[in-house]
Amino acid sequence: MARAHWGCCPWLVLLCALRQQMQTQNLSAYIIPGTDAHMNEYIGQHDERRAWITGFTGSAGTAVVTMKKAAVWTDSRYWTQAERQMDCNWELHKEVGTTPIVTWLLTEIPAGGRVGFDPFLLSIDTWESYDLALQGSNRQLVSITTNLVDLVWGSERPPVPNQPIYALQEAFTGSTWQEKVSGVRSQMQKHQKVPTAVLLSALEETAWLFNLRASDIPYNPFFYSYTLLTDSSIRLFANKSRFSSETLSYLNSSCTGPMCVQIEDYSQVRDSIQAYSLGDVRIWIGTSYTMYGIYEMIPKEKLVTDTYSPVMMTKAVKNSKEQALLKASHVRDAVAVIRYLVWLEKNVPKGTVDEFSGAEIVDKFRGEEQFSSGPSFETISASGLNAALAHYSPTKELNRKLSSDEMYLLDSGGQYWDGTTDITRTVHWGTPSAFQKEAYTRVLIGNIDLSRLIFPAATSGRMVEAFARRALWDAGLNYGHGTGHGIGNFLCVHEWPVGFQSNNIAMAKGMFTSIEPGYYKDGEFGIRLEDVALVVEAKTKYPGSYLTFEVVSFVPYDRNLIDVSLLSPEHLQYLNRYYQTIREKVGPELQRRQLLEEFEWLQQHTEPLAARAPDTASWASVLVVSTLAILGWSV
Amino acid sequence: MARAHWGCCPWLVLLCALRQQMQTQNLSAYIIPGTDAHMNEYIGQHDERRAWITGFTGSAGTAVVTMKKAAVWTDSRYWTQAERQMDCNWELHKEVGTTPIVTWLLTEIPAGGRVGFDPFLLSIDTWESYDLALQGSNRQLVSITTNLVDLVWGSERPPVPNQPIYALQEAFTGSTWQEKVSGVRSQMQKHQKVPTAVLLSALEETAWLFNLRASDIPYNPFFYSYTLLTDSSIRLFANKSRFSSETLSYLNSSCTGPMCVQIEDYSQVRDSIQAYSLGDVRIWIGTSYTMYGIYEMIPKEKLVTDTYSPVMMTKAVKNSKEQALLKASHVRDAVAVIRYLVWLEKNVPKGTVDEFSGAEIVDKFRGEEQFSSGPSFETISASGLNAALAHYSPTKELNRKLSSDEMYLLDSGGQYWDGTTDITRTVHWGTPSAFQKEAYTRVLIGNIDLSRLIFPAATSGRMVEAFARRALWDAGLNYGHGTGHGIGNFLCVHEWPVGFQSNNIAMAKGMFTSIEPGYYKDGEFGIRLEDVALVVEAKTKYPGSYLTFEVVSFVPYDRNLIDVSLLSPEHLQYLNRYYQTIREKVGPELQRRQLLEEFEWLQQHTEPLAARAPDTASWASVLVVSTLAILGWSV
Repeated sequence: MARAHWGCCPWLVLLCALRQQMQTQNLSAYIIPGTDAHMNEYIGQHDERRAWITGFTGSAGTAVVTMKKAAVWTDSRYWTQAERQMDCNWELHKEVGTTPIVTWLLTEIPAGGRVGFDPFLLSIDTWESYDLALQGSNRQLVSITTNLVDLVWGSERPPVPNQPIYALQEAFTGSTWQEKVSGVRSQMQKHQKVPTAVLLSALEETAWLFNLRASDIPYNPFFYSYTLLTDSSIRLFANKSRFSSETLSYLNSSCTGPMCVQIEDYSQVRDSIQAYSLGDVRIWIGTSYTMYGIYEMIPKEKLVTDTYSPVMMTKAVKNSKEQALLKASHVRDAVAVIRYLVWLEKNVPKGTVDEFSGAEIVDKFRGEEQFSSGPSFETISASGLNAALAHYSPTKELNRKLSSDEMYLLDSGGQYWDGTTDITRTVHWGTPSAFQKEAYTRVLIGNIDLSRLIFPAATSGRMVEAFARRALWDAGLNYGHGTGHGIGNFLCVHEWPVGFQSNNIAMAKGMFTSIEPGYYKDGEFGIRLEDVALVVEAKTKYPGSYLTFEVVSFVPYDRNLIDVSLLSPEHLQYLNRYYQTIREKVGPELQRRQLLEEFEWLQQHTEPLAARAPDTASWASVLVVSTLAILGWSV
Repeated sequence: MARAHWGCCPWLVLLCALRQQMQTQNLSAYIIPGTDAHMNEYIGQHDERRAWITGFTGSAGTAVVTMKKAAVWTDSRYWTQAERQMDCNWELHKEVGTTPIVTWLLTEIPAGGRVGFDPFLLSIDTWESYDLALQGSNRQLVSITTNLVDLVWGSERPPVPNQPIYALQEAFTGSTWQEKVSGVRSQMQKHQKVPTAVLLSALEETAWLFNLRASDIPYNPFFYSYTLLTDSSIRLFANKSRFSSETLSYLNSSCTGPMCVQIEDYSQVRDSIQAYSLGDVRIWIGTSYTMYGIYEMIPKEKLVTDTYSPVMMTKAVKNSKEQALLKASHVRDAVAVIRYLVWLEKNVPKGTVDEFSGAEIVDKFRGEEQFSSGPSFETISASGLNAALAHYSPTKELNRKLSSDEMYLLDSGGQYWDGTTDITRTVHWGTPSAFQKEAYTRVLIGNIDLSRLIFPAATSGRMVEAFARRALWDAGLNYGHGTGHGIGNFLCVHEWPVGFQSNNIAMAKGMFTSIEPGYYKDGEFGIRLEDVALVVEAKTKYPGSYLTFEVVSFVPYDRNLIDVSLLSPEHLQYLNRYYQTIREKVGPELQRRQLLEEFEWLQQHTEPLAARAPDTASWASVLVVSTLAILGWSV
């Protein structure tokens, strides 16, 4: 259906058609979430229902349509964008969560009204909060499996991707799928409630379990799927025509034994779960990312619920081969980023680079690395004040020129067959202000203080993330985002459940997490220093079970922005050891590839930072205080 | 009923009598929690039902009696004690929580069985967890308001205290009770659900609201009471005969207007709440400390629930007068502790002091301070290996001699009309080992690092408590308890909801918390350094809403145990400023009281710690690493 032909309100026709569908179902309101059926971070075009019906393309927001009104709720990051993109049919509500939506619904729809939703687009938690808020209100929540927006969208809806689903080469996998299946079954047997099956509904779960990949959604190498792994069968729900005969044979799909993968159609998952649930079974699900459309099929007494499935928990801890693979991908990724930084140093002074063309160059350099499979998220290439905006990405039309007078922030990563990367560096090619240097150095201290922290095994990230903030807090500075997230082996760049937030699981040896403090000065500049780090055992003076981080991102920080006088001897020692590691890891790779200019640059930028004379000012103040104290004076 | 006359099983007669009562009620099992009706930390003798019926006197543990068996569940702190104290009638279960109790019940009592409990001894949460665990099991949870243990206990049960309930002098209160009542009513009006009443069931809530005190339970100056504060009336449930005519007049108890306090009998609370609930009302309760016996009286749709009542939330933030009062009590408390430390220095070498006699001395010194009202908890006076035991307190019979060869830990506090105190110091009068000095200094660094931390307003304590542990973690050391708790103005020594745990509320200006890292070496020694600190605004280089701590405990640390080489210039600067503050606050008080020996001791022990030469070792290592790095060597 074409748009923009109806004067001020081009979306009226779409809404009119949707309201006809709502009438057919006897609905007073219809909820249109911005998500897909797998809670993917990046969703396919054919799943962008909310964007299509509202015009608003932001990554977060929910639309609700009644017979008279149409409204969108989104958070402050997207208010300007939503106001610009939505026409007069749509009202913007600058709120988040289900409570304001339900409050609005209660005033907009009559008593006895029915509120429709697609059960595959509401998580269990979201459904529960709508349900709870509507209880006793004489408004009914109605699950409708046929998506009404899709009916309106019709033939204009982009098709579901259909590229081949392929198996990873053994060189790039930590274990065979058979080993993984056995491991999950063994966890089922050990579980107190002895589930008979695990249902996997996150795409990364199925991709990880079978070592299969595809490219159905942006940035993540996944394919639309579910898996029902029972104690005696393996049922993979996906489009069978997308598997080659080799892949089918790799999956033993021709048999029906407990180690054979039976492939069923993706659309059959609800019916199959319902049928399986008739038996004497207990189905184990991860509640934090399973949709209500699956959940409502399983009788409550047959559910075994945990926040995360055993696949998510196992995947979070990388075995030694997976660790080696992820590290190797980070060495090559560093080559690409260093090539870009060298290229910028030469080209920015010419005035020929903008944020968008720069992003294209770094994406190109990554693409030239071995095993490359594209970027792991949309490159954030932000100059000057743009770097202070959360989630900023330049476009071909809207971007800013890079300049030696401004700071530049690059947050980017790659997908490689052996690993996923994510790194942020902030640079300045001219003369930074004293405040910029101070803020940069405090962010760097935060990164170092958390990276070198020694903490007891099984400590939650939440308990230690303040170490990345202390140096900023000390001066009255802070940042408004989280401090890090897990990352996968050619999987999600933001991989749950590892990280530093209250809903992340405890740290364990073998996990990878980003560490990424920042500082943002509105309208001026933004700083973020992000590395990926492996959780490793720490050797302590007295024996105990302690952990620390081993940074596996190998790109030097910008010496031009470091105020050495703010660093303690311990910080300098850490930094110089890190630089030494970069030389050892990346130097030979640059030489091997004949990237001699880059090698020279690396040597310069990893020169040990000079230990300044000890901070006599601070010692002097101790002496002064001591002397005054001896004299009995108040300080 | 006398005990110990029936050979190996003296408790059989008690159990027999209890089982008769159970039979009368047709019960298969009866739950006997260790708590009282107000979840007091310290409970009165007449409430020690579990201790009386089991013989086990530990402060945590639940007993359950069936027609055939009797069992106690308690945590590892009490296993030895429980085994020693309980006779052959009782079996010990080394588990905690309701799940193992219910699992046991399901095997011990027949289907259809009734499980009785006193609704005033189960919190809402505990009741819910029993209820949930028993659902679908064909066993019924039965609330019985007459306590069956009390029926057996009969006339031997100690009487409920009956001392006068008195009003605090105005000099010791932060606001009048009328101001507090108006403040709570104003919060009721502002609450989204506009409650018509607040029900207070924690004793400290009623004590705080009316500025009334008594001595019904150990260590806390409270009296058995409830308050139902409605928008038009104030109903105080307590024993009316315990109020003098002056106190009744202070409470305007002769009138019935909205600012008159109507006193009703303590035993009437359930009936009165039930009667009040018949109207068009909404009753606001703090769910984390209200008992099921109150909760079950209020229809669900008439409940307004928050974790903490508005009284708990208001009480947590001290106004300027309350801050001044609490600080003043800490100055006098420091005098008592310093007198004790001086006394120990002289007497320990004589070999005449033991843990118990020492505790008596410090309690005596506190008792001699102005406005003293006894200790705020049982003094922990622990020498050598005893200090490594959690919750150790000496008795007249069982104690250890203090010696110059061992460390000594004193954790004690006082109740004063103006404030409650709590301080821990660890000392060594001889030659501590290098490890003892290192551990002590690392604990001290933890105390300093958290005390001087600058953090954004409304940060949760949980996010920052690791700063008190980092210096220990660094060496592979740690401690197994929390890092601090709130404290009141002549109220609880462990005052919720302030502190560093996940269920504590966010830090705000005007709160007081203890900061108390420690280290414990099993079988050898224990270290804890505890100060009370006020949350104050921090002045930061760049403007922002930041907080930090101002320590209000004024007793020097033991110089004999500090390894200065482990301290940074910032630590020394902090320490010497703190010592200077102690001199300013406590010095004049000692002089005024002619405590000249103590004054001299204070001067010696607050001498500024000498700034050692800068830690050249650490700088040297930077230089070595740098040099090696330049040479391209691996470090």
